[in-house]
Amino acid sequence: MAKKTVLPDARVSPRFAGVATFCRFPLPEQVAPENAPADWAVYGAPFDGGVTYRPGARFGPRAVREASQYVKPHHLEHGVTLTETLSIVDAGDAPVAPYSCRETQDLIAQWAAEGRPGCDESTKMLAVGGDHSIALANMRAAWRRHGSPAGGLAVIHFDSHIDTVDTIWGETHQHGSVFRRAFEEGVADPTRMVSIGIKGPLNRADDLNFAIDAGVRIITHTDWRADGPDRLRDFLSEIAAARAYISFDIDAVDPAYAPGTGTPSVGGFTSAEALTILRSLAGVNVVGADVVEVLPDRDPAGVTALLAAHIVFEILCLDAVRRAGS
Amino acid sequence: MAKKTVLPDARVSPRFAGVATFCRFPLPEQVAPENAPADWAVYGAPFDGGVTYRPGARFGPRAVREASQYVKPHHLEHGVTLTETLSIVDAGDAPVAPYSCRETQDLIAQWAAEGRPGCDESTKMLAVGGDHSIALANMRAAWRRHGSPAGGLAVIHFDSHIDTVDTIWGETHQHGSVFRRAFEEGVADPTRMVSIGIKGPLNRADDLNFAIDAGVRIITHTDWRADGPDRLRDFLSEIAAARAYISFDIDAVDPAYAPGTGTPSVGGFTSAEALTILRSLAGVNVVGADVVEVLPDRDPAGVTALLAAHIVFEILCLDAVRRAGS
Amino acid sequence: MAKKTVLPDARVSPRFAGVATFCRFPLPEQVAPENAPADWAVYGAPFDGGVTYRPGARFGPRAVREASQYVKPHHLEHGVTLTETLSIVDAGDAPVAPYSCRETQDLIAQWAAEGRPGCDESTKMLAVGGDHSIALANMRAAWRRHGSPAGGLAVIHFDSHIDTVDTIWGETHQHGSVFRRAFEEGVADPTRMVSIGIKGPLNRADDLNFAIDAGVRIITHTDWRADGPDRLRDFLSEIAAARAYISFDIDAVDPAYAPGTGTPSVGGFTSAEALTILRSLAGVNVVGADVVEVLPDRDPAGVTALLAAHIVFEILCLDAVRRAGS
Amino acid sequence: MAKKTVLPDARVSPRFAGVATFCRFPLPEQVAPENAPADWAVYGAPFDGGVTYRPGARFGPRAVREASQYVKPHHLEHGVTLTETLSIVDAGDAPVAPYSCRETQDLIAQWAAEGRPGCDESTKMLAVGGDHSIALANMRAAWRRHGSPAGGLAVIHFDSHIDTVDTIWGETHQHGSVFRRAFEEGVADPTRMVSIGIKGPLNRADDLNFAIDAGVRIITHTDWRADGPDRLRDFLSEIAAARAYISFDIDAVDPAYAPGTGTPSVGGFTSAEALTILRSLAGVNVVGADVVEVLPDRDPAGVTALLAAHIVFEILCLDAVRRAGS
Amino acid sequence: MAKKTVLPDARVSPRFAGVATFCRFPLPEQVAPENAPADWAVYGAPFDGGVTYRPGARFGPRAVREASQYVKPHHLEHGVTLTETLSIVDAGDAPVAPYSCRETQDLIAQWAAEGRPGCDESTKMLAVGGDHSIALANMRAAWRRHGSPAGGLAVIHFDSHIDTVDTIWGETHQHGSVFRRAFEEGVADPTRMVSIGIKGPLNRADDLNFAIDAGVRIITHTDWRADGPDRLRDFLSEIAAARAYISFDIDAVDPAYAPGTGTPSVGGFTSAEALTILRSLAGVNVVGADVVEVLPDRDPAGVTALLAAHIVFEILCLDAVRRAGS
Amino acid sequence: MAKKTVLPDARVSPRFAGVATFCRFPLPEQVAPENAPADWAVYGAPFDGGVTYRPGARFGPRAVREASQYVKPHHLEHGVTLTETLSIVDAGDAPVAPYSCRETQDLIAQWAAEGRPGCDESTKMLAVGGDHSIALANMRAAWRRHGSPAGGLAVIHFDSHIDTVDTIWGETHQHGSVFRRAFEEGVADPTRMVSIGIKGPLNRADDLNFAIDAGVRIITHTDWRADGPDRLRDFLSEIAAARAYISFDIDAVDPAYAPGTGTPSVGGFTSAEALTILRSLAGVNVVGADVVEVLPDRDPAGVTALLAAHIVFEILCLDAVRRAGS
Repeated sequence: MAKKTVLPDARVSPRFAGVATFCRFPLPEQVAPENAPADWAVYGAPFDGGVTYRPGARFGPRAVREASQYVKPHHLEHGVTLTETLSIVDAGDAPVAPYSCRETQDLIAQWAAEGRPGCDESTKMLAVGGDHSIALANMRAAWRRHGSPAGGLAVIHFDSHIDTVDTIWGETHQHGSVFRRAFEEGVADPTRMVSIGIKGPLNRADDLNFAIDAGVRIITHTDWRADGPDRLRDFLSEIAAARAYISFDIDAVDPAYAPGTGTPSVGGFTSAEALTILRSLAGVNVVGADVVEVLPDRDPAGVTALLAAHIVFEILCLDAVRRAGS
Repeated sequence: MAKKTVLPDARVSPRFAGVATFCRFPLPEQVAPENAPADWAVYGAPFDGGVTYRPGARFGPRAVREASQYVKPHHLEHGVTLTETLSIVDAGDAPVAPYSCRETQDLIAQWAAEGRPGCDESTKMLAVGGDHSIALANMRAAWRRHGSPAGGLAVIHFDSHIDTVDTIWGETHQHGSVFRRAFEEGVADPTRMVSIGIKGPLNRADDLNFAIDAGVRIITHTDWRADGPDRLRDFLSEIAAARAYISFDIDAVDPAYAPGTGTPSVGGFTSAEALTILRSLAGVNVVGADVVEVLPDRDPAGVTALLAAHIVFEILCLDAVRRAGS
Repeated sequence: MAKKTVLPDARVSPRFAGVATFCRFPLPEQVAPENAPADWAVYGAPFDGGVTYRPGARFGPRAVREASQYVKPHHLEHGVTLTETLSIVDAGDAPVAPYSCRETQDLIAQWAAEGRPGCDESTKMLAVGGDHSIALANMRAAWRRHGSPAGGLAVIHFDSHIDTVDTIWGETHQHGSVFRRAFEEGVADPTRMVSIGIKGPLNRADDLNFAIDAGVRIITHTDWRADGPDRLRDFLSEIAAARAYISFDIDAVDPAYAPGTGTPSVGGFTSAEALTILRSLAGVNVVGADVVEVLPDRDPAGVTALLAAHIVFEILCLDAVRRAGS
Repeated sequence: MAKKTVLPDARVSPRFAGVATFCRFPLPEQVAPENAPADWAVYGAPFDGGVTYRPGARFGPRAVREASQYVKPHHLEHGVTLTETLSIVDAGDAPVAPYSCRETQDLIAQWAAEGRPGCDESTKMLAVGGDHSIALANMRAAWRRHGSPAGGLAVIHFDSHIDTVDTIWGETHQHGSVFRRAFEEGVADPTRMVSIGIKGPLNRADDLNFAIDAGVRIITHTDWRADGPDRLRDFLSEIAAARAYISFDIDAVDPAYAPGTGTPSVGGFTSAEALTILRSLAGVNVVGADVVEVLPDRDPAGVTALLAAHIVFEILCLDAVRRAGS
Repeated sequence: MAKKTVLPDARVSPRFAGVATFCRFPLPEQVAPENAPADWAVYGAPFDGGVTYRPGARFGPRAVREASQYVKPHHLEHGVTLTETLSIVDAGDAPVAPYSCRETQDLIAQWAAEGRPGCDESTKMLAVGGDHSIALANMRAAWRRHGSPAGGLAVIHFDSHIDTVDTIWGETHQHGSVFRRAFEEGVADPTRMVSIGIKGPLNRADDLNFAIDAGVRIITHTDWRADGPDRLRDFLSEIAAARAYISFDIDAVDPAYAPGTGTPSVGGFTSAEALTILRSLAGVNVVGADVVEVLPDRDPAGVTALLAAHIVFEILCLDAVRRAGS
Repeated sequence: MAKKTVLPDARVSPRFAGVATFCRFPLPEQVAPENAPADWAVYGAPFDGGVTYRPGARFGPRAVREASQYVKPHHLEHGVTLTETLSIVDAGDAPVAPYSCRETQDLIAQWAAEGRPGCDESTKMLAVGGDHSIALANMRAAWRRHGSPAGGLAVIHFDSHIDTVDTIWGETHQHGSVFRRAFEEGVADPTRMVSIGIKGPLNRADDLNFAIDAGVRIITHTDWRADGPDRLRDFLSEIAAARAYISFDIDAVDPAYAPGTGTPSVGGFTSAEALTILRSLAGVNVVGADVVEVLPDRDPAGVTALLAAHIVFEILCLDAVRRAGS
């Protein structure tokens, strides 16, 4: 029988009340034995020392926690109730080393792979950033927990930027190199990776070449309008058996919907498009995920954090759909 | 001959000048005899005691008045000039009882059904909220003035939420139960109601059941993309003879376009989509309407109030089109 | 030996990381046995249904939790380290009934007087509002726990408004009547109450009369400049033996320092003045307190919540000074 | 017997309800015969074509109307109830010529000197700007209505800038030349003028010389700290018999208190200081006034408009004190 | 061989560093001889004295400079690297006469037609406004430099408003009359002009008639959805041989994407649509352009200025595509 | 004869026009020979990798440049015209290494000590941060250029925090250790340093001990009210002969005046107090300075950057006063 997630009683504690956890999920120590170990742990990765432009995403986890209070548990389009299907915790924030991206990646990866109250190594980890550099840490943890000897994780990557640069300002570990490092470490498999929403302008004509040469399927924002859904469908059938990781950089969405991010890129998806694409992933075996680059100080109306909270929900529901279907 | 609405002389008082009334419409005592009784009275319903999450919509009427100063009178797509076709007043704000939703609904309903200078019982009432609970009051007034013995009003409802909950925190009268109460009171007819833009997530899988069982046609945001325009067209032909009420909760529109609302729901309509749907209602016999849930304190760029002002204009133009056509 | 408050290890979890509790205090279930029962419980009272103008203070507790992350534990001017002297918890948010002020006051009062993990009836309660109506609930709890048969609590009240109105819109329980009800219930003693920072304009010339007749000492903002410190000193020596309650309405401070409040009143204290007055209370036997009327949606730079967080700290330090001294 | 100002019944229409007029004063056509002609007419002057830096003050009147809804009628420090002592109207906005400062000044001056319903030439005019250039228009109207053959009006001027420049960008009529023109026209008397709050930096060392040579008493912000109150007291006794005009540029107050202005100048008065100075003018025979340079688009927390609304109240109360005293 | 644009070395001066010029282009005096004369000069036109509603666009050039720092040089969709193909400078801001639209238009037109270091009369001029009235000045300069005796420039005009009014408030030169004046002066040819994105409401039914009668092709926002791309394609083939001018009023885009503008009009293009249309102009012989009506004070998240910066980039790339192709 | 600073002709380029440099000072290459070498170079240090809480100060230099456009050249209180007395340039931004504080400090120090067009080693350097860690770099440059063999620079330090921590998160070079490192390197002399505005709360009781033991004179914000001016006067007479460095952390000022900073501390100086203290430094031999910790993303009304711009002006005027006096 499915484990469940017990939310606060809204008759006592309305959605505007209480210490804010992701989607009002319980803290690990609050999980009842029958719901342990949790199926998913959502946690914060409050680090922004890997950015190349505007910092501030270290405050992303708190903003998403706050905005997620109004996320309700039943997914209308999938017809599944998240909290009736999965046991989910808010595992708090991972440790960080604010002055070192590399050290932070190591700290988070180790912390995310460790057991904790209410969780064990079967628990899947969803990281809320922080800048995109923290994805490397969470992919490592996902691979350590759920990877297969056959190779790195399949990756479904939403972004305006390809993030496969080698070095920036002499540094190999920052938010622009996260997938290149993941390929090198073997935690991600470029031949089973798709990057959705890539758009220009670029620094140089060859900025995408490394990823293309490595086998990454790129569906630019422009491609999406032409034949993106078909291409994505083909990709998904190819990786049907794979363990997949979803990495969602909020700047894949247009600045009108997600102004609160460090390197906004105009001309992106609407929220409705982003949710639709996410819903089309139903069936994928998601073993880890991240939602990154939410920068609250540039989000005066709170719409970015609200969207990010719903993307967290959509990703978790993908697993709920799969379990409900099995 | 059509009565008219006389606007301030823009050569003397530019759109940024003067005491702000809805769309610069005259106050009731400023209406010339030849334009009385007014065809429509737009009024504020400054109440937000019925909310379940974020309050503040009591300041909605003032924000919409201010934002509406730049609403011009000629509708390009319909080819009709509102102020040449209808006599419209800003009737001020209805009385409210800030600590009681039920008492406020009674106060507003009675006030809206009463005559006042320049208006009589033929005048149609458009309420600007305030939270959605005020719609019950305005529907009552519309039904009392323009209803037919045959049954409740037909309702065209734009919203992310179905608003047919029975009780919340033990209270039967708040913004989530407004249509359920309207059905019970007989002022709205669920079998002649359509709800457009409904979306998840929901609290429970059966949240929509009451409405569906009662006969409400639901066109979710997802349905809209599939076959919504057809479904709406069918519905409209069914209710062609009916007296219809339009209730527009601004959260039907995506938070990028309407961040200033109390329970924003991501993945909604764009402004252009919302206006297009409204324009497709041409021909409907609108006898009352509301535009609700504008919350100015979450609207830093003013786009929500501006959109709401234009929705007021679009709704009024539907009646202008009808009169111009007749 | 003094119990202590154990804060998160900042080497692992920087101040910008982690689930936000008041001043990073532990949750009740996280308190070690040697620090139980806690000396103080700080809790949220997320209710704003008692306001007469702008709502939104229901989001005050969350905003103060977030802003309080940078509050450090050592008080430079008093020379006392709060967390070395007192055991303090964040007890979460009290239950509320969003549609009824009176019911909410009952719920909070009962909840605040109950025991809970890590706390017992010796634990003092500091409520973070919410609107000022929640002060009645917390005064009741303080009186039930720490009151003396001799009479109601002494009260040190910071505010622009006297809050002793009888009824507003027919309602006896809202944020403008909180002290009148407290006098009637006997939980506060008007002859041992001082109201600091009162200022005009008033609705009527006799708005202060009830309080004056009841024996409340009023030190208006204007009085303060003339001889306020002396008057306050005299009052404090009078109540030296009393059990005192501090109620701090953030609108006592000028809108430049505290724009985020529902009924801002121009010409108030600076932050530095407010902190200085609070520090002059050293020696008072504080048995309960509240900090109310923080409205985050009107606080674009976050200065109001930050100030409120520091006022919480200053109040707690008054007890730390007293214990350190004893 | 004193005429009165009848405000809306707050039991029906709370302060957050209704079409917003200055301090909820009636429109001219709403004044009962026994209260006509009004003692004062407050009106908007929505013009900002005279600025030298940031425009936007054309939206000042609306913002001040909105912020003034919470201004209550009884002045605690003066002990006078404004609405029991004076009959005051909101006369709407004066006509403007948005592309010409000079033409606008003529339009406003003529409009302000004209009679209107509920007002006659005995009614005193308080203009809410708009940029400072509109002060010339209102001074003209004040002088025409209330001036004496003996010479121009006495002027009490609050500002960071002296505003006696001759021409800017070839234009003699803009917001920096307003008093120079007033001296030339004879509507203001430089030998009976005091400028309070002047501060640097200046464009040139001799920027103040014209004013000094003309006889204007300058009390810089720095002077104020040294001996300003004494100097002001001396000045007031000199002009005790005069008909005085008060011109309050909101930038006299520090940007922390009044960020919403076009040429903010750091290091100015606090709100409390500004109100105290205004209160010290009790006894002056005020025959006209303006409050100018409120720029809402730079006022995210609304504190500037709120302060301006209270300055309007303070100025009107000066006349109420005088009448109450006589 | 193509001249180039040398950008700052990002290894030394990251995109968040340095004095902000448009897209980090060099100032004229910094252009190396081999890159002179520049192909394009981008300059600011900081004037907003021609507006009919909200001013503030005088600060547009600075905001666009700042937002443009993250514009990268390679256009992914066109496959062209702007800085490798064209030599571009930031020519600073044109002179303005803040109190006179007409005089400002003369000043800018003359300045823009003059040579300057690193530029000569072959250099094309792209003006960043400022309100739309500055477009007349830049069209004059474009025509003087690049026009043909055969007639005025072809114009591709993006806007919500047609801007062919004759006079407003008695003034013939303001932002609503810019194309009417351009037709009269012969610098623009109405029979070779297309206006894209026009939408209602209008002041009067005949507001578009002048333009239609003059031969302007109007593709309203509604038309666009029906058959706009085809109509535009037809138009472009008609003007294939012409020298074309692009005038982009940011209010053609929906307020969700461009809130920071003076007369926002709901229901407009998304950013993605706007960029797509611009890209479809590849092949046009662009000899001048403007991007206008960016009003930073209404752009709290900075998305408007960011979009405008990318529109500048898209327009410049049109010429790069053409040169790369030739 | 004094060299001068030539500002743009305001008749052509108003203060709202042009590429924004600090106070409109010329770039180095724009300085006329007779004004070279410049007396002062103001430059940006866009680095915030040394913060312990909220990042974003890397955008400080741009914000201060923009806000400084309205800084005029004549200092009213000192009676000196800055631009007539000193030749000053905006030297652009120093190079930074965004991922390494230590490397950045080395880069900036070397860059600041180098000659450049229009400057030589006699030119004094004023750095605009950026976080406080950049002060170490600028002190090094000041000491290298203007230091004396007798020992480190005298330091006048404005701050809420003492910034003499040894290591934070294992890092010795960040914004909290800047003076400790400066003492160790010998560039600053703790026995000739005063820290003004220090306030609590602190992390630990002994947080100030290192500084006190090293000989730093601390005038806390509380001390200031008691006898600060006297203490400062004494200190200044002690260091009358010394070469002094001014380091101004904007968080010394209260958050109402300077919300835009990374670690705001409530209860600080008003702007007027800060300017007054700075003016009292007249006579000091200032050989270098910095103004740091301006964080524009938390500065919605722009008051922080405006204040910082004026502090830059005040510091430069101290040298102007000295030269004018000599």
